[in-house]
Amino acid sequence: MKGKFIVLEGVDGSGKTTLAKRIAEAVGGADLTFEPTKGVLGAALRSGSFGDIPPAAEALMFAADRAIHTEEIKKALDSGRWVICDRYLGSTVAYQSASFGDAADWDWLLSMQSKSVIEPDMTILLDIDPEVSLKRVNSRGEEISRFEKLDFLKKVRSAYLRLADILDYQVVDATMDPEKVAETVLGIMEKKGLYAPQ
Amino acid sequence: MKGKFIVLEGVDGSGKTTLAKRIAEAVGGADLTFEPTKGVLGAALRSGSFGDIPPAAEALMFAADRAIHTEEIKKALDSGRWVICDRYLGSTVAYQSASFGDAADWDWLLSMQSKSVIEPDMTILLDIDPEVSLKRVNSRGEEISRFEKLDFLKKVRSAYLRLADILDYQVVDATMDPEKVAETVLGIMEKKGLYAPQ
Repeated sequence: MKGKFIVLEGVDGSGKTTLAKRIAEAVGGADLTFEPTKGVLGAALRSGSFGDIPPAAEALMFAADRAIHTEEIKKALDSGRWVICDRYLGSTVAYQSASFGDAADWDWLLSMQSKSVIEPDMTILLDIDPEVSLKRVNSRGEEISRFEKLDFLKKVRSAYLRLADILDYQVVDATMDPEKVAETVLGIMEKKGLYAPQ
Repeated sequence: MKGKFIVLEGVDGSGKTTLAKRIAEAVGGADLTFEPTKGVLGAALRSGSFGDIPPAAEALMFAADRAIHTEEIKKALDSGRWVICDRYLGSTVAYQSASFGDAADWDWLLSMQSKSVIEPDMTILLDIDPEVSLKRVNSRGEEISRFEKLDFLKKVRSAYLRLADILDYQVVDATMDPEKVAETVLGIMEKKGLYAPQ
């Protein structure tokens, strides 16, 4: 039997890592993975080592990193393992459409990724006011990634919510207590037949 | 006045480098450039240092490299300089559609590049039987790139010719003497009002 593929979307500090661990625990184990990946492309995108490049080039590189990652995800699913992925197609659309500003072309951001992705069994959007998420990231003393600036994150949040409408994401209020978030998500999974409490 | 943008397409050994120099000479100077570029991505694609990756990932990386390159080309054109580019959009379609085999999706290979390119003033396809071009490459003692294998190149040639139809490339018989090739191309440029002999 094939494993299930669950995607978590949301800005840094929205609680994706904590939720991924809780879901894995509840379903009896899962491969936890993330994007941009630890591969050559992903690492370079994360650090910004490509320098000041056009938003289209960055979007294409995220999609390339995802195409490589998707091959690994497929292998895990085929061998029956669950995969929980922190960021996937939606991150590139949300962050890159914010980078493009008025020139954002949603059709292109979606269609150019069509060879990079497989359909997740469920995508959860952890929705949060970026002022709250930035405070969380600051309080845990983490370095704030080059993508996480308040004004920019407000655009990312809007894009995420628009995307949730288009692609039928499950939107969950990420300002709730982490355990409440996990309960909500497991409840959704139960309704979808993805999870049965023991 | 903006410079003109000329693209040369064709397999290795089709005479693109020699032709680029002859056109530059004829029009009184031009920036000669090529793809994959000397940038981080281009160099990695050339050497194959990304390893064994899905064709879609490779296609997306070529497009990303092109998007960055196009910014430089635009600057040169805006400052009035001519640019002659060895490989552009067509190379990714021709080589990657050959890599994809039966799964080649031409619409995607073209549309995913839409943010990476500008319209050239002219694209020349130097058409040649790959058996002839491979002999030329061998005879000059060059290392044959990982893309240049006979069976594969036959598919690339077909894809190039199909693309020439779709995108209105000027197809020139590249088995002719290099000087004859240059004369033919300059003749086409004259007819198109891109060149006036002194």
